[in-house]
Amino acid sequence: MAPTVTLDTINPKVLKCEYAVRGEIVTLAQRLQQELQSNPGSHSFDEILYCNIGNPQSLGQQPITFFREVLALCDHPAILDRSETQGLFSADAVERARQILDQIPGRATGAYSHSQGIKGLRDTIAAGIQAHDGFPADPNDIFLTDGASPAVHMMMQLLIRSEEDGIFCPIPQYPLYSASIALHGGTLVPYYLDEETGWGLEISELKKQLEAAKSKGIAVRALVVINPGNPTGQVLAEENQRDIVEFCKKEGLVLLADEVYQENVYVPEKTFHSFKKISRSMGYGEEDLCLVSFQSVSKGYHGECGKRGGYMEVTGFNADIREQIYKMASVNLCSNISGQILASLVMSPPKVGDKSYESYRAEKEGILASLERRAKALENAFNNLEGVSCNKAEGAMYLFPRIYLPQKAIKAAEDANITPDTFYCRRLLNATGIVVVPGAGFGQVTGTWHFRCTILPQEDKIPAVISRLTDFHKGFMDEFRD
Amino acid sequence: MAPTVTLDTINPKVLKCEYAVRGEIVTLAQRLQQELQSNPGSHSFDEILYCNIGNPQSLGQQPITFFREVLALCDHPAILDRSETQGLFSADAVERARQILDQIPGRATGAYSHSQGIKGLRDTIAAGIQAHDGFPADPNDIFLTDGASPAVHMMMQLLIRSEEDGIFCPIPQYPLYSASIALHGGTLVPYYLDEETGWGLEISELKKQLEAAKSKGIAVRALVVINPGNPTGQVLAEENQRDIVEFCKKEGLVLLADEVYQENVYVPEKTFHSFKKISRSMGYGEEDLCLVSFQSVSKGYHGECGKRGGYMEVTGFNADIREQIYKMASVNLCSNISGQILASLVMSPPKVGDKSYESYRAEKEGILASLERRAKALENAFNNLEGVSCNKAEGAMYLFPRIYLPQKAIKAAEDANITPDTFYCRRLLNATGIVVVPGAGFGQVTGTWHFRCTILPQEDKIPAVISRLTDFHKGFMDEFRD
Repeated sequence: MAPTVTLDTINPKVLKCEYAVRGEIVTLAQRLQQELQSNPGSHSFDEILYCNIGNPQSLGQQPITFFREVLALCDHPAILDRSETQGLFSADAVERARQILDQIPGRATGAYSHSQGIKGLRDTIAAGIQAHDGFPADPNDIFLTDGASPAVHMMMQLLIRSEEDGIFCPIPQYPLYSASIALHGGTLVPYYLDEETGWGLEISELKKQLEAAKSKGIAVRALVVINPGNPTGQVLAEENQRDIVEFCKKEGLVLLADEVYQENVYVPEKTFHSFKKISRSMGYGEEDLCLVSFQSVSKGYHGECGKRGGYMEVTGFNADIREQIYKMASVNLCSNISGQILASLVMSPPKVGDKSYESYRAEKEGILASLERRAKALENAFNNLEGVSCNKAEGAMYLFPRIYLPQKAIKAAEDANITPDTFYCRRLLNATGIVVVPGAGFGQVTGTWHFRCTILPQEDKIPAVISRLTDFHKGFMDEFRD
Repeated sequence: MAPTVTLDTINPKVLKCEYAVRGEIVTLAQRLQQELQSNPGSHSFDEILYCNIGNPQSLGQQPITFFREVLALCDHPAILDRSETQGLFSADAVERARQILDQIPGRATGAYSHSQGIKGLRDTIAAGIQAHDGFPADPNDIFLTDGASPAVHMMMQLLIRSEEDGIFCPIPQYPLYSASIALHGGTLVPYYLDEETGWGLEISELKKQLEAAKSKGIAVRALVVINPGNPTGQVLAEENQRDIVEFCKKEGLVLLADEVYQENVYVPEKTFHSFKKISRSMGYGEEDLCLVSFQSVSKGYHGECGKRGGYMEVTGFNADIREQIYKMASVNLCSNISGQILASLVMSPPKVGDKSYESYRAEKEGILASLERRAKALENAFNNLEGVSCNKAEGAMYLFPRIYLPQKAIKAAEDANITPDTFYCRRLLNATGIVVVPGAGFGQVTGTWHFRCTILPQEDKIPAVISRLTDFHKGFMDEFRD
């Protein structure tokens, strides 16, 4: 009997969707890992090092103690009044858990919340945004979501009617965007970041691409900016952000600001500014710009990917559209409550004078300082390789080195029917167990080749990673040098 | 300046989507609740009683202690080795937390997992399914999701190409299905449950509606069955389930089995059987039927809605399609880890001899027995009302009484430009603070009127709920009786 469902009879948008950071290289890595488990010594390395995805705790980063204390107490409030709890948990974690429980109707952490998330937690988050930005934030503008991804999907679903609706995305981009645009049947309108100027974003490029899209009959609805950049790691200059805001206002584009790496800035000369802060400081308000900012508990110094917490702050939309967004949120009932609580903690961590403050600060600064050192070490290592150039890691969790591949390697990739960057990454994985993602998955200027590598291996492993990378690369070049 | 985004320029599928259980009646209830808070005594009741949604813990149901102990320990594993922990947590919860942590790569509950969920937890779930069904279950068939809703969306997204693709849904149905079909641009093909026979499902009705759909050029791709029924509360007979399996096999339909209420059966003469068990017991395997079973941690006796845990078991699809489903799961990275852990606990609760077994059993049986009593009491109360008939609550968490509204009330509703059932429910809310959902949101035979009411108010409140309902209904009938 013929199968009921075949590739010919499913939604072609699903077929079109690709998500490279969990694509074929990762599937190969999982197979190698199984081989290592069932047959130790079967490869020249003894572990798979997943540098394909920003997943810090999978590589050994420890969670922030205060956050986890509060989560545990909210999961099992019955122990709050027990004397043993005083010895096990910090006093301010107990107090914070009580405060949070008081904000939850019926103290029920096992109940569906309001579709946008628990009101008291949204109050805390709005206050946190306001403290960061210096401009008001409204808890009614906050939609808590299971990580940032569902929030991005929601906006794509709202805005995209057909393939004649375009969404501006940087190239290179984080493939959630290309995947989501494909799933919702729109058109990704690229704007290329300029590698020569540290992945700079030029307004002239936006204008050029907007015209090109228009000439093809595509109405561009929104502009995605990822700041700090993923996979490119740059932090936008304030001046540049103002130009982007002006451009979106002028062209009537919704500004979709992916700001999930806002805590991940590693260079003293750059500071993160939210697009809301920038637009408000330009005097623009609700009437001037539709702006959505995405934030996640998965990134920052805490890296709580598995908790699936995040939010979007939605401003500038009229009441009718707000109602539609609310309805979309309602269909999925609510995001998970632990993730909601964690989002509130991230936006309101212990403060000077709190019992946990010193340990919190030490954990946070330790992680950020280490990330900075790791970014620098890997950046230097890449720049020391023959035919590789790597821009400065100003922020986020990635490096995106360019590899100038020899013709012989390009030919070998052609023969293997894969892209040259995939060829390189597959070779790297097979030789070293290091998993990186080919640039093709993010988009790159035709004829250039890159890969994305996280800066997340734990610091004591970095020298070994660098030496494995370096040895592999030397061998690769010796094999393929023209 | 004109707003950038208007109702005319958004995705019309979003506009078309409706989700009644968080619709206008709930918005009104939230407003009344705010009024009660800011101005106590402003209404003739002093609390809003949310009977609109199956959200047990919001109405005071307590979580299962063992589950919450394990979750808390997995959130903060640092306390596992502390002596105070022995006094605070049951020994088997500590042991279970250790086992679960051992199943998580790097013991990292803060890391993204495999896109389908943590392998060790899927092993546990598959073993649980196997123990229930008596037929093998494969952990590679399990996709852990943030509650059942995202799993349903994923299947709709996979199957629906255009409005010429139809999905069979029971009428009345849980509005997640109509909402999801609308969002993905398909056509809901109704099959009517027969209220006279306790919301029976007739194969003749399926055949009739399939022909009707075909004659309109609609290709029906899948059949949704909700068992136990939502909003209708019936538990399907085994015989009936076999007919459904046979029908899906014959017509090449994917069987989407919503089995989230599998633990919620309140009558001794009925037993829940999964569709997988039924189809395997008929001798049908992977080659014969595409079958997806949805399960959730939100329902059952535990009712952990806020944890957003759930899974789908996907069988009968070929490898190509499996790969596409995997890719869709990957785009959202993974479901939240606490929800994953909870799903494994629900499918593998304490067993006879475990330290927590007796308290677990007492909590579980206490809740289920109370739900049974509450269902019965509300069912009787509805049947005692003039012009109301209510079928037996065999399972799930709802009653769906039919109200024979007087012409005068129907006329008044017309004047107010709302459906008669909405008119009744709004009146009920304004008079009593009790929130129920008009039948229109679920679908009903034209000219009949119903509402859905959960059986979830805590037991000590049931007499007051009944007397408020009864008094309201008498007054309503006195006002509108023809």
